[in-house]
Amino acid sequence: MQIAILLYDRFTALDAIGPYETLGLVPGAEVVFVAERTGVHRSDKGSLGLVVDTTLDEVTAPDILVVPGGPGQTAIMEDGPLHDWIRAVDAGTTWTTSVCTGSLLLAAAGLLKGRRATTHWLGLDQLSTMGAEPTGERVVFDGKYVTAAGVSSGIDMGLALAGRIAGDFVAQSIQLGIEYDPQPPYDAGAPEKAPAEVVAAMRDNSRSILTGRR
Amino acid sequence: MQIAILLYDRFTALDAIGPYETLGLVPGAEVVFVAERTGVHRSDKGSLGLVVDTTLDEVTAPDILVVPGGPGQTAIMEDGPLHDWIRAVDAGTTWTTSVCTGSLLLAAAGLLKGRRATTHWLGLDQLSTMGAEPTGERVVFDGKYVTAAGVSSGIDMGLALAGRIAGDFVAQSIQLGIEYDPQPPYDAGAPEKAPAEVVAAMRDNSRSILTGRR
Repeated sequence: MQIAILLYDRFTALDAIGPYETLGLVPGAEVVFVAERTGVHRSDKGSLGLVVDTTLDEVTAPDILVVPGGPGQTAIMEDGPLHDWIRAVDAGTTWTTSVCTGSLLLAAAGLLKGRRATTHWLGLDQLSTMGAEPTGERVVFDGKYVTAAGVSSGIDMGLALAGRIAGDFVAQSIQLGIEYDPQPPYDAGAPEKAPAEVVAAMRDNSRSILTGRR
Repeated sequence: MQIAILLYDRFTALDAIGPYETLGLVPGAEVVFVAERTGVHRSDKGSLGLVVDTTLDEVTAPDILVVPGGPGQTAIMEDGPLHDWIRAVDAGTTWTTSVCTGSLLLAAAGLLKGRRATTHWLGLDQLSTMGAEPTGERVVFDGKYVTAAGVSSGIDMGLALAGRIAGDFVAQSIQLGIEYDPQPPYDAGAPEKAPAEVVAAMRDNSRSILTGRR
């Protein structure tokens, strides 16, 4: 079972690592990081560099596609070879998935039209302008399309999908192995829960981030 | 505020990325991945390669040390230059932290004697044999030493420490930014919670992992 995790410059590291450390642990899984070019790809904060060993044309038939999000997503929304590749491999996948603003790339490739989906809470409006039907759920299954909310939600998505693929025992073993018994020190992980001033400040900040100006 | 994240071959990726995506977002934070050698370091599953730009002797005074865990930890427990470096920088840190079996490295360097601490649930016995006092908490503060339980607990640790350093508003903003509103599909993230057969199977499997035979 090949899992292709798509990278690009200025991806968000946890978007990619959440599914990697969950879905990637399903017995028989082979994870490949894939991008338009091989070599080091820097995450959104620059200090982290992740190595890509495989180019798009070397990965033609993954069983699962994982598209992480990140500020760099805004720079690759225009239709082109990357979107061609997404469409081509999607034709053969068992599951096509995304974390955070990765779903905006799936939507830009035309894969989420009329589908229930999600993305980072700051990107929900944009998702709906591209024909998807945003939901308030953290992980959304619509047929073979599985989209997850912001950044850390890729862990929940990976576990849920591991359960669908390999059963509860395997998924629970993965959860126990990564000791995923979350105890956040605050209850501020969603806009409905965080203090209003925190949400307002983030909306203000995000305007420049979401439009690619940093 | 310099945050040094120590890497070594066969580290666990999420151990490092959890603090990176939380603590690393505190305003003024500068994250540096540091290791005995520069270049690509492969995580425990091989398919992931993270680039280290900086060697130990180039990082002499980090404000925060983060030591992730992973199967590779077992190969570097013998006292040597790495432990010398850990002791040397610890003398100047504001916070010395670990995730998962990273605390076993701190303990091996002699830093956790008589201190309350934690590690991956499968490593708690080993932690106590090295003079630390294991607790059942997910994130343990003892003075400037902050240790976290297995793998995913580094997210909770990073948020808790962000709050101590920069206040609730900043920590809540980071939590909202990474949309950390965990909704695991199972309640199996701790040995007290997972089905007994899942725990038993993992204990069996882990014997070879913890002793470095895979």
